[in-house]
Amino acid sequence: MDSSFSLKPVRPADQAAVRRSNLALVLRHLRDAGPRSRAAIAADTGLNKGTVSSLVSELVERGLAREGERERAGAVGRPGTIVELDGRGVGGIGVEINVDYLTALALDLTGTVLFEQRVALDVQALPVAKVLDAGAELTARALRECRRLGVVPAGVTVGIPALVDVTSGTVAFAPNLHWTDVPVVRGITERLTRRLGPPSFPIRTANDANLGALGEYAMGSVAGTADLVYLTGEIGVGGGVISGGRLLGGAEGFSGEVGHIQVDPGGRVCGCGRRGCWETLVGLAGMLRLAASPADPVHDPSLDLEQRLDMIRRRAQLKDKRTLDALAQVGTGLGVGAAVLVNVFNPRVVLLGGYFAQLGPYLLGPMMTELEARVIAPRIGGCRVELSWLGFSAAARGGAHVALQAVFDDPALVPVQAERDSG
Amino acid sequence: MDSSFSLKPVRPADQAAVRRSNLALVLRHLRDAGPRSRAAIAADTGLNKGTVSSLVSELVERGLAREGERERAGAVGRPGTIVELDGRGVGGIGVEINVDYLTALALDLTGTVLFEQRVALDVQALPVAKVLDAGAELTARALRECRRLGVVPAGVTVGIPALVDVTSGTVAFAPNLHWTDVPVVRGITERLTRRLGPPSFPIRTANDANLGALGEYAMGSVAGTADLVYLTGEIGVGGGVISGGRLLGGAEGFSGEVGHIQVDPGGRVCGCGRRGCWETLVGLAGMLRLAASPADPVHDPSLDLEQRLDMIRRRAQLKDKRTLDALAQVGTGLGVGAAVLVNVFNPRVVLLGGYFAQLGPYLLGPMMTELEARVIAPRIGGCRVELSWLGFSAAARGGAHVALQAVFDDPALVPVQAERDSG
Repeated sequence: MDSSFSLKPVRPADQAAVRRSNLALVLRHLRDAGPRSRAAIAADTGLNKGTVSSLVSELVERGLAREGERERAGAVGRPGTIVELDGRGVGGIGVEINVDYLTALALDLTGTVLFEQRVALDVQALPVAKVLDAGAELTARALRECRRLGVVPAGVTVGIPALVDVTSGTVAFAPNLHWTDVPVVRGITERLTRRLGPPSFPIRTANDANLGALGEYAMGSVAGTADLVYLTGEIGVGGGVISGGRLLGGAEGFSGEVGHIQVDPGGRVCGCGRRGCWETLVGLAGMLRLAASPADPVHDPSLDLEQRLDMIRRRAQLKDKRTLDALAQVGTGLGVGAAVLVNVFNPRVVLLGGYFAQLGPYLLGPMMTELEARVIAPRIGGCRVELSWLGFSAAARGGAHVALQAVFDDPALVPVQAERDSG
Repeated sequence: MDSSFSLKPVRPADQAAVRRSNLALVLRHLRDAGPRSRAAIAADTGLNKGTVSSLVSELVERGLAREGERERAGAVGRPGTIVELDGRGVGGIGVEINVDYLTALALDLTGTVLFEQRVALDVQALPVAKVLDAGAELTARALRECRRLGVVPAGVTVGIPALVDVTSGTVAFAPNLHWTDVPVVRGITERLTRRLGPPSFPIRTANDANLGALGEYAMGSVAGTADLVYLTGEIGVGGGVISGGRLLGGAEGFSGEVGHIQVDPGGRVCGCGRRGCWETLVGLAGMLRLAASPADPVHDPSLDLEQRLDMIRRRAQLKDKRTLDALAQVGTGLGVGAAVLVNVFNPRVVLLGGYFAQLGPYLLGPMMTELEARVIAPRIGGCRVELSWLGFSAAARGGAHVALQAVFDDPALVPVQAERDSG
């Protein structure tokens, strides 16, 4: 699928560029068409056999393909040597910096999770430099684990609940972190360099909910759903939209800012300074405010978020009235805002991530009531509401996925074995 | 561009299908690559020269290509025969059925307008059958004009302010027409057959604002803008979104229902039965209600809409306080709703069509004030607000364009000369 985060395809301006472009062509063909002989690759792609042999050798050296001998039944002569994608030696790393936690996750090309860690962090209370220190330290842990496993990193993608200028690697504005114009890519790169030496792979940053939507589309419970609205409940509310199988980017990559749709002109003041934004009603802070008094431990940002949500869920199971009322109110609010998105996008699925997924069973009823009342298309346009299985890991998974996708655009991102040993 | 209205590409399942697919390939190549010799077409497409010659002959017979002899400078032997696209013999017809008018418009493949007519009609006051009668009569006039000009019709597309099931050709629900489950394609086809015999071309129906967005993207003032939100002010408010160069369709083709975003929970009851929908604030009916007393002639649906809007504009020019206040209020309302769409889509342009374009100079100021206050991205995400030049003809133009695009998917939609003369 198209993605504004993927590297631009190499333009074959010279011999080296042509070779890289053909290397990518063969790698993608192995991914899409499956294991096959060099002769078949040549026939399928139109490249000549000598070129294919040389390209396959390079892919093998880079740990992206492997050979296996296979007897062709009834064939005369030497058995064909089959080439197949080898995803185990390459890793993508996704990092998420959110209001009260950091996550890092590493995937290999086969989708296996190599590393996953979340740490609680009160980001609003810390200076930006300290947050980037903590983010770089967690990323370094993921990279060290990759090295221990003999996996070469293809890239790092840092997801942030923010308006992100993807091209310059800068957070333009993150209302809930209170960040403005933070050069995240430069900050993480400098800090990783101090820890592990200069990185040999690209570092990117992107909006967390857009990465979450890509992660869900690639490997979540409704993977492959071409028209998908992904909503993630964090302190704020993030949105990422897949439309016709592509991430909706927008003219400057600022699409999906759903948290600041005004749903209550007389409502609370939001972190962004406006009044009555959707996330003041249904964000984590809004939900916790409804559900518990200020001194209640569910508000403690030093506790892990899952632990705090477990407290809420337990109270709901015990039919605590304040908790149930709060969740019903949030579910109604979710439906009010989601109805706008369903009217505008007509998605097949609205997928609830973040804390919405954890407390989904208490939110879905009132949410559906509002959707049915407010969506103008019959049967709410054939839309289902589903809960994410990836939970708080979706953005980091999406980030790791984006890092890996870049390998299919430029396999030379992965160094050959000799460079690896000296690096 | 992709469009949910275009015919599916022919699958080369048999010889005849392969030929049609290759015919389309050659026609599109002439459109995209420009005039060239048969030999060049063969080299570019990979088809053999004999096949190309036969396909070109068929395109000439169908009036879709023409030959011109051109001397190649310095070349030895016979001068090359250049083949080029011939768009003058094929027409697409777009029809719009709206609350208080009908429009029909015919374009040829070069984009020249062959026929355009709008008639005032109080659609809400008439039974569906009468409206379809009037729509078919206007369509027949466009078809007769095409016949007079020697232009072969490639198709008719009927735009309606409605949730449209494009596949079955049925209006599921049109709140402002008070239509539910109306088989528009069947109704128009039967009526055209009574007037002109069975049509030899496809008849389609689609949402008017989606067609308007396609028309603007193909031939409007901001043609080619890949991220475009088109808003049309009629009795209701229609929306069509181009994202990454493609029409946003949605899972069932029901996307872009922007008129029913709730902007005022305590507002007026809408034609859809809900309260405080955006179009109650900024639709034509809402604007006229603010601008003039019920007995004022601007409310008279038997007068042409442009004439009624001219009255409003003249009053605004004369600084009539009630008119100016009404337009300022509508401009503010436009900004409130558009801010939601700009936050969600991050378009390069919000294009105002329908009556918004006509009265734009009085709406833009207050609209921009709201956008600047409500959009979270800096500089409203690099978005401009512009006025449509196509005005009330955008949907009909888009419909004609969709009909013509189908020819590039299947040139055999256009009969050969012999069939034409006998038809």
